[in-house]
Amino acid sequence: MRRAEFEVKDKEVFEAVLAECEYGTLSLIDGNEPYGVPVNFVWYGGAICFHGSREGRKADTIAQNSQAAFSVVKPYSLIPSYFSDTRAACPATQFFASAHVAGNVTIVERDDEKCAILSAMMQKLQPDGGYETIDATNPIYTKMVSQTAVYKLTPTHTSMKVKAGQNLSDERKADIIKKLSDRGSELDKTTAKAIGNKGII
Amino acid sequence: MRRAEFEVKDKEVFEAVLAECEYGTLSLIDGNEPYGVPVNFVWYGGAICFHGSREGRKADTIAQNSQAAFSVVKPYSLIPSYFSDTRAACPATQFFASAHVAGNVTIVERDDEKCAILSAMMQKLQPDGGYETIDATNPIYTKMVSQTAVYKLTPTHTSMKVKAGQNLSDERKADIIKKLSDRGSELDKTTAKAIGNKGII
Repeated sequence: MRRAEFEVKDKEVFEAVLAECEYGTLSLIDGNEPYGVPVNFVWYGGAICFHGSREGRKADTIAQNSQAAFSVVKPYSLIPSYFSDTRAACPATQFFASAHVAGNVTIVERDDEKCAILSAMMQKLQPDGGYETIDATNPIYTKMVSQTAVYKLTPTHTSMKVKAGQNLSDERKADIIKKLSDRGSELDKTTAKAIGNKGII
Repeated sequence: MRRAEFEVKDKEVFEAVLAECEYGTLSLIDGNEPYGVPVNFVWYGGAICFHGSREGRKADTIAQNSQAAFSVVKPYSLIPSYFSDTRAACPATQFFASAHVAGNVTIVERDDEKCAILSAMMQKLQPDGGYETIDATNPIYTKMVSQTAVYKLTPTHTSMKVKAGQNLSDERKADIIKKLSDRGSELDKTTAKAIGNKGII
């Protein structure tokens, strides 16, 4: 995934991947060991926002070392080697779009900011509503807001990689789209759409 | 995800999650910064095996610090708050099964072991075949095997977490399964199956 040909600098694509994906993996340093923890998140106010318990390894690790890297992957289809004209296994790959954020995690202390972030996360993950507005002064939420740790990872660096055939010739793209359509899974249909649309759906 | 109630120690479930998921996120330490990189992988010979270029940030980081944590997530449905009998947003969650491996990464040097790992990865990701057996002495593969870095992360610690309703009462489980079936997406059907099957499909 290292190659420059897959690096993309397009804010629209970056934000689309973050909006599309429900979770990402937070990489932290616990003492002197790497530690990875998947979290649901929302991109809000220019930061990766997530929540968790006030206790446990994630909370303890962030308290000791606020540096973090966050990776989000939108996986697309596995592209079999035989989609290329070869008997070698080498062309087998998986198409994807991924977004990466590095920076420092801070804990959100103010109740109004915590509620705004939790509301944004609910709007992302449960867009059809069906709950009372999150507000720390509402008795059904007061204890939850107090007990929940809300974090934001403010980027010092962002990057993204898209491998969705964007560097292929139009002829080769059309060939892959046809083969995906013939195979026909839901993911293949999504992937075919992404190939024609900068890697996003 | 920290709570002990979600921790699972069941080798069958662990290996099922690793077999089901095409990629995971490798957390490394680059200098003194956390670094996360998604990779396709295969669980082979009791190790997380993956490949990459001999050059680039992943290769350089591993060469300098072999410690790694690897997280794999099988995401299930978002469970909306209104599946519970409340007007609060709090019960909203995502069901998932996740597997975590910590240990040290070594680079595989022997061509026969590299080919065995690459073959295992192909069997996982392209089970329908359609390519010649990977063998460094086959001229179509000699250069690729030489140029590809193959790694294995040998666990010093493994863990997994499953949040798929396994701790709920039978009545509550049946209620969620019914609501997922009524909503009826492919992921909901998968999730309903996982709820009845230790979190695996």
